Amino acid sequence: MKAWQQRLHEIIYEADTPAGKAFDVLLIAAILLSVAAVTFESVDQIRQQFGTYFRILEWFFTVLFTVEYILRLLAVQRPSKYIFSFFGIIDLLALLPNYLSIFFFGTQSLLVVRSFRLLRIFRVFKMGSYLRQAKVLQDALVASRQKVVVFLVGVLATVFTVGALMHLIEGDKSGFTNIPVSVYWAIVTMTTVGYGDIAPQTPLGQAFASVLMILGYGVLAVPTGIMSVEIARASISTSTQACPSCTKQGHEQDAIFCKYCGSPL
Amino acid sequence: MKAWQQRLHEIIYEADTPAGKAFDVLLIAAILLSVAAVTFESVDQIRQQFGTYFRILEWFFTVLFTVEYILRLLAVQRPSKYIFSFFGIIDLLALLPNYLSIFFFGTQSLLVVRSFRLLRIFRVFKMGSYLRQAKVLQDALVASRQKVVVFLVGVLATVFTVGALMHLIEGDKSGFTNIPVSVYWAIVTMTTVGYGDIAPQTPLGQAFASVLMILGYGVLAVPTGIMSVEIARASISTSTQACPSCTKQGHEQDAIFCKYCGSPL
Amino acid sequence: MKAWQQRLHEIIYEADTPAGKAFDVLLIAAILLSVAAVTFESVDQIRQQFGTYFRILEWFFTVLFTVEYILRLLAVQRPSKYIFSFFGIIDLLALLPNYLSIFFFGTQSLLVVRSFRLLRIFRVFKMGSYLRQAKVLQDALVASRQKVVVFLVGVLATVFTVGALMHLIEGDKSGFTNIPVSVYWAIVTMTTVGYGDIAPQTPLGQAFASVLMILGYGVLAVPTGIMSVEIARASISTSTQACPSCTKQGHEQDAIFCKYCGSPL
Amino acid sequence: MKAWQQRLHEIIYEADTPAGKAFDVLLIAAILLSVAAVTFESVDQIRQQFGTYFRILEWFFTVLFTVEYILRLLAVQRPSKYIFSFFGIIDLLALLPNYLSIFFFGTQSLLVVRSFRLLRIFRVFKMGSYLRQAKVLQDALVASRQKVVVFLVGVLATVFTVGALMHLIEGDKSGFTNIPVSVYWAIVTMTTVGYGDIAPQTPLGQAFASVLMILGYGVLAVPTGIMSVEIARASISTSTQACPSCTKQGHEQDAIFCKYCGSPL
Repeated sequence: MKAWQQRLHEIIYEADTPAGKAFDVLLIAAILLSVAAVTFESVDQIRQQFGTYFRILEWFFTVLFTVEYILRLLAVQRPSKYIFSFFGIIDLLALLPNYLSIFFFGTQSLLVVRSFRLLRIFRVFKMGSYLRQAKVLQDALVASRQKVVVFLVGVLATVFTVGALMHLIEGDKSGFTNIPVSVYWAIVTMTTVGYGDIAPQTPLGQAFASVLMILGYGVLAVPTGIMSVEIARASISTSTQACPSCTKQGHEQDAIFCKYCGSPL
Repeated sequence: MKAWQQRLHEIIYEADTPAGKAFDVLLIAAILLSVAAVTFESVDQIRQQFGTYFRILEWFFTVLFTVEYILRLLAVQRPSKYIFSFFGIIDLLALLPNYLSIFFFGTQSLLVVRSFRLLRIFRVFKMGSYLRQAKVLQDALVASRQKVVVFLVGVLATVFTVGALMHLIEGDKSGFTNIPVSVYWAIVTMTTVGYGDIAPQTPLGQAFASVLMILGYGVLAVPTGIMSVEIARASISTSTQACPSCTKQGHEQDAIFCKYCGSPL
Repeated sequence: MKAWQQRLHEIIYEADTPAGKAFDVLLIAAILLSVAAVTFESVDQIRQQFGTYFRILEWFFTVLFTVEYILRLLAVQRPSKYIFSFFGIIDLLALLPNYLSIFFFGTQSLLVVRSFRLLRIFRVFKMGSYLRQAKVLQDALVASRQKVVVFLVGVLATVFTVGALMHLIEGDKSGFTNIPVSVYWAIVTMTTVGYGDIAPQTPLGQAFASVLMILGYGVLAVPTGIMSVEIARASISTSTQACPSCTKQGHEQDAIFCKYCGSPL
Repeated sequence: MKAWQQRLHEIIYEADTPAGKAFDVLLIAAILLSVAAVTFESVDQIRQQFGTYFRILEWFFTVLFTVEYILRLLAVQRPSKYIFSFFGIIDLLALLPNYLSIFFFGTQSLLVVRSFRLLRIFRVFKMGSYLRQAKVLQDALVASRQKVVVFLVGVLATVFTVGALMHLIEGDKSGFTNIPVSVYWAIVTMTTVGYGDIAPQTPLGQAFASVLMILGYGVLAVPTGIMSVEIARASISTSTQACPSCTKQGHEQDAIFCKYCGSPL
């Protein structure tokens, strides 16, 4: 890696040097300003008065972030590794809307996806420990993904069946005009959001809805239980004690012997 | 078991051979298509234009699944074991609505119960581990059933008593016209769904409803706590393996040595 | 205790003998019927047609349960112990409404408090294990009571402060007419029930409400966490292993030495 | 510290002596009465009839609490330590509104922040154990703060992006007039509050909202899992006591002997 590439990498990707830190602070500020600009521009009164200024500001940021994206590509040895990473995709999606809006009116609103870039904010502050905590959450999410998928398929099958039943029971008058809308109602109810734009009117429908609500209320316990268990596991096994014989980590706090090789800890 | 029976069993019930895998993929596709057909057919505009095509499609699927059901019965030595299993009942309920709709208009909507057949989807993918995770959830549900029943009786008694009290306090004007409707309101509120179609208007009613909401909000913790504990237990001790040396159980799935005495498991 | 007292106690309080079991089954049936009667009687159409029959039925049950209450008093050596127990108070409250309704119209609705008597239902079924599970839940509730009280005082202080702030910000137009009503809105929102009968209209109010919602959404985690921990503790320490030396129970599953007396388990 | 300072400190800050206990009881009573006064005064009917009396009452309490604040400052050696503590800030905020209301009409409503002073209530009752439990909750909150911050940034980025998307999809007709309001809707929905004042009308919007609801419903599990784990940890290891023989920690509060090696703690 050439020298200028190494220097660029230091500034952009790491926050150890003063230049690196300053880059990150400016980046965060730019992201926050650009998201605020898009947000305020969407309010009619503000757009009518200051519309042009906001559009100029947004193009300024888009050009700025495009230059930054190109610099990121140049500062790594394998650009494809960055392009397909979580942050790489977010950064690309954060650039597109403004270019799209030349063709499609209004899509510049999507610029707010830039707010996901704020997850970089932790490189400015006590980087190490925030990122370690984020990793704990990430490990927990990944470890529980299979149980979550099983759970989701069950939930989807339930809301479809319940939606269809309510469509049969309530019919058009209460708003249950077809199955898709009834499924929407079932999701609104089972997640306990409960807008009230559609609500059962017939006694049978209300009785059936009651069963669904108590079910949803109890079923909420399942993903919570899954997540709690996984976060607990991820938290406990970040204990950095490594077995002296086999150097493996991930022992429980009260283990006396290494469960991987049998040596005493 | 005769040879053709064994071959049939391999294809339908198992997914080890290419034929078995192909059967499962086609089955999933057929289920998804048939559920989509029923869902779209329920939308008025679509039904008016394409109604006939959808009905033909649904009958095609019903015949297909009936043939599949018969094949399943033929491919096992004890058909009753399949008929009364969880999947057996789902498969039967997935067939009935279309036959019923010859007599009762509209019941073909219930065909969406076919979506529960999608739980078979895990035989196509990493079968083993998804099914193991599903078993963990299932064990947790079964192990907690007694606590859940105690909890449910308590909740039912509460919503009945609260509903009757609100019927007394609020009376007809706010919509609390009788006890069944007031109980419905109590369930809608305690599960925090909160449609707003019925809401207390009098200060006393609102005060009482506030107590119910804080109660429901805290009581939600109970089934969640129950489920978390059971999922944790089911996850950790799905291995009933006891250490040969010290006979202790409770080893994690990835343990190779007993953490209590160091002997190999 | 006299012989007839003992026989009476066997039938009423215990479910070991056929007579005891029969008594409990009849009792459950009577409770269910009487709650159903009160519930249906509250529906206008039904009351107009069958009102008189229902009132006769309710008086029949009230007399029946009064006789049962007197029998319970006679069947124990210390009646006061029953009168002030959980079930004793429930049973008394289940009798009063009908007598009150001679003076106050409509209070017979409160007869549904009889539904709490359904908690006796577990004496008919697998008594032992349901009651043990109920005891686990009860122990968990009792053990967590102090944390719950601290939590509740914090929640009440929060909803009062937030309610007053919203009353200041929103004023009369959005329905935040005075502090009590604003506090009611704060509870409806923080518990995520969200009727929508009162909702903030001003941007500042909506921003402030957003903060409250995210807070309530996260704060819900606190009682859940408390309950999960206590249920876990109550579940684990019902392990019936008693220390051979000091006979104390409540050891964790992986304890090797008794934590009370130091002897090996 | 002079003698009168010591005596004052005993009365105000501690509750060991009869005078100290009496002071606390009177303080709690005064706080409750003053919060009740502000609450009732906000109701129009009551203010019209008794307005003057309430204002006099509030000024009485404000003077009383100002005197108490000054006494607290005098009773400690380093006043700044009290001024910047949690309770010190609460006590100051509890005094300001009435003084502010000379300039700004209506701000006396903020007097309800005095209700936070009710957290002192635990010094009157079984002080030790309630404060220990409160410390457990406080430790849990502090220990989880980093995970909570990571979680919050993720939630904020999500509601902004979803809000902007819905603003694009639904447009003005359904109430999604600009991004700030759409973000407000996203928060109302993701926290499952669901007022219903704004709700998606287009099929695409409803489909997208459904995904958000299931997401929010599952994401609720994350802070709950975090809190549960931290409360569990804080409960078990509030004793930092290490076993003198084997130096292991993690003993429960009621352990007398080390569960790992049997030695007395």
